[in-house]
Amino acid sequence: VNAAASLATIHPVELPDIQAEPPAIPIALDEAGVSDLRYPITLHLADGSSHHTVATVAFAASVAADVRGVHMSRFVEILHEWHERISVPTLGALLEELRDRLDADTAVARFAFPLFLERAAPITGSAAYVPYDCELEGRLSGNQAEWTVTVRVPVKSLCPCSREISDYGAHNQRGIVEISVELPGSAGGSLIDFSDLITVAEQAGSSQIYSVLKRPDERYVTMRAYENPAFVEDITRTVADALRADRRVRAGRIRVVNEESIHSHNAYATIAWQ
Amino acid sequence: VNAAASLATIHPVELPDIQAEPPAIPIALDEAGVSDLRYPITLHLADGSSHHTVATVAFAASVAADVRGVHMSRFVEILHEWHERISVPTLGALLEELRDRLDADTAVARFAFPLFLERAAPITGSAAYVPYDCELEGRLSGNQAEWTVTVRVPVKSLCPCSREISDYGAHNQRGIVEISVELPGSAGGSLIDFSDLITVAEQAGSSQIYSVLKRPDERYVTMRAYENPAFVEDITRTVADALRADRRVRAGRIRVVNEESIHSHNAYATIAWQ
Amino acid sequence: VNAAASLATIHPVELPDIQAEPPAIPIALDEAGVSDLRYPITLHLADGSSHHTVATVAFAASVAADVRGVHMSRFVEILHEWHERISVPTLGALLEELRDRLDADTAVARFAFPLFLERAAPITGSAAYVPYDCELEGRLSGNQAEWTVTVRVPVKSLCPCSREISDYGAHNQRGIVEISVELPGSAGGSLIDFSDLITVAEQAGSSQIYSVLKRPDERYVTMRAYENPAFVEDITRTVADALRADRRVRAGRIRVVNEESIHSHNAYATIAWQ
Amino acid sequence: VNAAASLATIHPVELPDIQAEPPAIPIALDEAGVSDLRYPITLHLADGSSHHTVATVAFAASVAADVRGVHMSRFVEILHEWHERISVPTLGALLEELRDRLDADTAVARFAFPLFLERAAPITGSAAYVPYDCELEGRLSGNQAEWTVTVRVPVKSLCPCSREISDYGAHNQRGIVEISVELPGSAGGSLIDFSDLITVAEQAGSSQIYSVLKRPDERYVTMRAYENPAFVEDITRTVADALRADRRVRAGRIRVVNEESIHSHNAYATIAWQ
Repeated sequence: VNAAASLATIHPVELPDIQAEPPAIPIALDEAGVSDLRYPITLHLADGSSHHTVATVAFAASVAADVRGVHMSRFVEILHEWHERISVPTLGALLEELRDRLDADTAVARFAFPLFLERAAPITGSAAYVPYDCELEGRLSGNQAEWTVTVRVPVKSLCPCSREISDYGAHNQRGIVEISVELPGSAGGSLIDFSDLITVAEQAGSSQIYSVLKRPDERYVTMRAYENPAFVEDITRTVADALRADRRVRAGRIRVVNEESIHSHNAYATIAWQ
Repeated sequence: VNAAASLATIHPVELPDIQAEPPAIPIALDEAGVSDLRYPITLHLADGSSHHTVATVAFAASVAADVRGVHMSRFVEILHEWHERISVPTLGALLEELRDRLDADTAVARFAFPLFLERAAPITGSAAYVPYDCELEGRLSGNQAEWTVTVRVPVKSLCPCSREISDYGAHNQRGIVEISVELPGSAGGSLIDFSDLITVAEQAGSSQIYSVLKRPDERYVTMRAYENPAFVEDITRTVADALRADRRVRAGRIRVVNEESIHSHNAYATIAWQ
Repeated sequence: VNAAASLATIHPVELPDIQAEPPAIPIALDEAGVSDLRYPITLHLADGSSHHTVATVAFAASVAADVRGVHMSRFVEILHEWHERISVPTLGALLEELRDRLDADTAVARFAFPLFLERAAPITGSAAYVPYDCELEGRLSGNQAEWTVTVRVPVKSLCPCSREISDYGAHNQRGIVEISVELPGSAGGSLIDFSDLITVAEQAGSSQIYSVLKRPDERYVTMRAYENPAFVEDITRTVADALRADRRVRAGRIRVVNEESIHSHNAYATIAWQ
Repeated sequence: VNAAASLATIHPVELPDIQAEPPAIPIALDEAGVSDLRYPITLHLADGSSHHTVATVAFAASVAADVRGVHMSRFVEILHEWHERISVPTLGALLEELRDRLDADTAVARFAFPLFLERAAPITGSAAYVPYDCELEGRLSGNQAEWTVTVRVPVKSLCPCSREISDYGAHNQRGIVEISVELPGSAGGSLIDFSDLITVAEQAGSSQIYSVLKRPDERYVTMRAYENPAFVEDITRTVADALRADRRVRAGRIRVVNEESIHSHNAYATIAWQ
């Protein structure tokens, strides 16, 4: 076969389109597409800032009962065209293009990426980036659009029980506040953005975390956390209280996880509303 | 403080119960508990076999609006008592105990673990274990029980398009067939088990995979896969077709992922039904 | 081709042995084998206890310059025969069997697994399992055997700087003490075991961690950690001091990682000696 | 304590410098620093191109026997100043600055990041990014500099044994070619770059992989892989053969991993030289 290597470069005039054939089992599929596709993206926030980052992307389309499969390469072509224009407000146009080019009823797009925002230390003002894991998801089906914005925000939590029952000290640890909100995608009006949710989460822990802390800053964070003890349950309620009344949110899910420093397992709490 | 080290061992007669206090924000929580708790378990299957494995466990309870938090240590105590008795049929009793001892309306249990089943090579019969990632989840709320059984089964998939458009060869790869079914938890009657779902998944790929393959076996698997090309869409439909009519299944979700050997990203398809 | 499906089950009397052919490029390889093979194992400790767990296994053999490849299926067959007899003292016999059956100069075995040891809470004595990530590695080359035993032990660390510069409280967090020691594999005499290293690591943090802690225990752990502040550098030195003089250790590496509760990144320190 | 919240913002004129104190155990440490720090970086290649990506960073310094610890915040400050100037040629200046500002004998820097390079499909020329996981590591100790450049390159591998023993087809899969080379860091002369190593790796598999493949491209890749069967051992030797004579390489390690499509474990081979 090696001698015939050139065969690979000669392709027949017509290659059959197997994906377009009818399937053996005529069942409609919810999604068929690509996943775990890592891609450089530029994310644009509502404040006009743009952020270079790396996303893990899934794009998909529904498949009708009489079509065997989707043309996967189109998803990557569309991502390549769009990768510098990712934002909450442009999600709708991306979904429409996905749906059109895949000739499908439903289109789905999911981006997961770290968003880096500069944070200044509380006393010295020394600045550096803090990573916030975010997700942007959208589904367009008929006239119905569902958009979901998710953030995972590291905070410091300090245990109220530990503080109360001990003569000195209190166990504290890194926690993650995960907020996932559905937006009224089709509506006009102002849209919630990643930074809005990050701010809510950071204010709900015992203390915000930072990437650079000089000694005066470390003193501040230590004492502030001791002054604001919070269980995972407390943090979850604080976030829920801040967001349930927000008109830009149609439905939400909150999950707070504390990486307990007295155990090797975690503590968590969740709430969802519609 | 070091001189006073012995203070830690002297605890007051009464330590306050902070979790039992009213919360600052009276909102009921869906779940509060422990997660990412790795534990040795013994899993029992319907065929009478028992399997030592390691699970990642989450246990939780709902929290009423007037209670600040749950007593996390109780979850670990209950797991320690139960860890050798994990199975689909015993899930209900475990959930009831969780709910009783946490004094809650709702109890939740989630186990994720690899299940090792012996598989004999197709021609030589040489046997070894194949790992199948499984999950067992349950929620008991009032009289309503929801149980979910999930398996992730590795298969070999061979691309029908690649085979058809090429003069020789066809790209193929490892795929994962994920099946997640909800059981009518409260009902009597026969329950679906992990091995039932694994069998369905293994028969849906281009070929089953194995841990030991001698040369005659490798020949068999290679040729069998070439004879049974299947897109992710095809595999998803085959599994759906086998399970949608199963009376032991109340609702289901299927997700098939192909770790495409021609890309560094994956292809996937999904279907869900109720 | 589908009509010829039965062809796959008919194998010629002689299948060629491609691995045994000479390679195109005659370079000797250090290792060729299987990796990422998950398998149930039984680990035996020096105290006579045995522990069911799940390992990720790599087995390999060297490849001479005039041989194309190894017979991978033999590794899995040997693992299947040995999986219930894994321990530090039996590692030598396993390596010899690997080397013999692969007909190689050098054999390599690596096991990574969680070891679960029961730990009693410090005041109430409530007991549950704590997971310790362990590795057992061996290389047998000619007469020379190299064995490495590794443990990763979760501890609680409390920052001395934070405590000193603050009027109250001190940031603390989960830390991981990783100890990796080389044993004089060929020697007789007593062998160091996983539990020996785990004990050294647990005593080096600000406090041990536990899976179950009732309120009196939580008070103890909180106060004990406050009384024993330790930087990653301090913990690393404490472990090194305990092990460098141990005659059962030929060489060692220590790495302590603190999952800083005031940052979303970690702090670490390392030391190695021979 | 809550009433005294403002205390946290008032810091004494002099906060003690605990890290500068002598340690309880006077042992010198190899490294103390920060790890798992995710940061946006701009990577510059030898061809003048620059690439926005996200790195996981570790910076460290040695600690003398009479010093308790390092000042961790300085590492993050230096990263913030340098994050847009990362490249192989500038690594030396970064290490010198780390060493100076930490006042240490030895400085260490490690970056791990995906590098995205555009790849055109072999027949249609359709272009998209392929991710290559890379690492850049340096250690400066006295006059001695050690630099290491690592790439992990996805390729397609097709099994020579499977092809030979089967009447049709051959199992193939995604493989990862990992190349890690030490550079003569202190020397002048031309430096090897990430793209050089990526090119070597891509040519060593049965076929290169791509992010976009239209049908004529898929035909090409399928047939080309069938024409170029290669074991992990073969790929490892091909890469070693290409790099061992390269004067820009002082020492090297190669590890090729095949994500076997007939198993759920992997096959691998390694070689190292100095």
